[in-house]
Amino acid sequence: MTAVHAFGRSPARHCKSCGAAVEWRVPDDGDTRQRAVCSTCDTIHYDNPLNVVGTIPVWDNKVLLCLRNIEPRFGKWTLPAGFMELGETLAEGAARETQEEAGAHIEMGSLFSVLSVMRVGQVHFFYHARLLKLDFDPGHETQKVQLFAEHEIPWDELAFRTVRETLIRHFADQASGQHGFHTIDIN
Amino acid sequence: MTAVHAFGRSPARHCKSCGAAVEWRVPDDGDTRQRAVCSTCDTIHYDNPLNVVGTIPVWDNKVLLCLRNIEPRFGKWTLPAGFMELGETLAEGAARETQEEAGAHIEMGSLFSVLSVMRVGQVHFFYHARLLKLDFDPGHETQKVQLFAEHEIPWDELAFRTVRETLIRHFADQASGQHGFHTIDIN
Repeated sequence: MTAVHAFGRSPARHCKSCGAAVEWRVPDDGDTRQRAVCSTCDTIHYDNPLNVVGTIPVWDNKVLLCLRNIEPRFGKWTLPAGFMELGETLAEGAARETQEEAGAHIEMGSLFSVLSVMRVGQVHFFYHARLLKLDFDPGHETQKVQLFAEHEIPWDELAFRTVRETLIRHFADQASGQHGFHTIDIN
Repeated sequence: MTAVHAFGRSPARHCKSCGAAVEWRVPDDGDTRQRAVCSTCDTIHYDNPLNVVGTIPVWDNKVLLCLRNIEPRFGKWTLPAGFMELGETLAEGAARETQEEAGAHIEMGSLFSVLSVMRVGQVHFFYHARLLKLDFDPGHETQKVQLFAEHEIPWDELAFRTVRETLIRHFADQASGQHGFHTIDIN
């Protein structure tokens, strides 16, 4: 159970199918990991990494960041991003989050960075995006949005390490004229 | 609720924290989607896409495929792949699945394909991998493994469309001398 607690998830105590208490054990089906198993109806509960999808919205040489209005990291700056939902592709999720958090009008580009964040059981994805106009309507998760050139980025006030790593590579690629794709592991 | 059923998941009927029956409704926290919400203890249950991670194990111009010994697609051929687990990166998950399903000794390469499979709420990832020896020890999920050149691939007997799309692009890149990275949406 300790391994499951470690990712900030609240572990299952009851079966989602029948409500009986679950046991934490390795299922009898050839699995090798402890899962929450229902002794009453045999339902096995799996807990897997979550995808966070977002964009790097660009206008000229500036990047749009959102000042967070929610926890975690209230009052810190982030690229628009959030949990991927059922019923959408990675790119559709990234576009939706950009709309919800920044109310920005964008043209989606290619996938730029994929970051495994093992400690929290997440994978983050950031897509290139081009702002079509300077007209924003941030949702309730965002206090305000602002455009930043590289030297203006509030590096010490960024909400997430994945945002930092993505911005570093974005500006490096911009400076060198490369159009890279980056896979990054964060512990 | 229909939208949730549509991804082949069994929807939550009981709260994982307290076991009470859940209600399907939009939570009061600014969310816009129906979730399983516990009226007794207020736990909100989220159901999100799952990541499937695997490799394209190569020896000379041949690719290793596994003949499936489990459902779904028992008796069909697949690249070694399976669900990403908590506590691992994408690449570590892909290497683990290759070990578990093929017992193959590989050197991991870069990420080759990322495929959003919207209908089943999954994202599939395939990494380049180089076989280090022709010595395999497939696990219980695999009947046997076999190496295939492009003209030998059992195209009509492949287990998953993501495997097909990945193999098509792998051989195309091999033929053209390119070393591409591919994002693909599958409905």
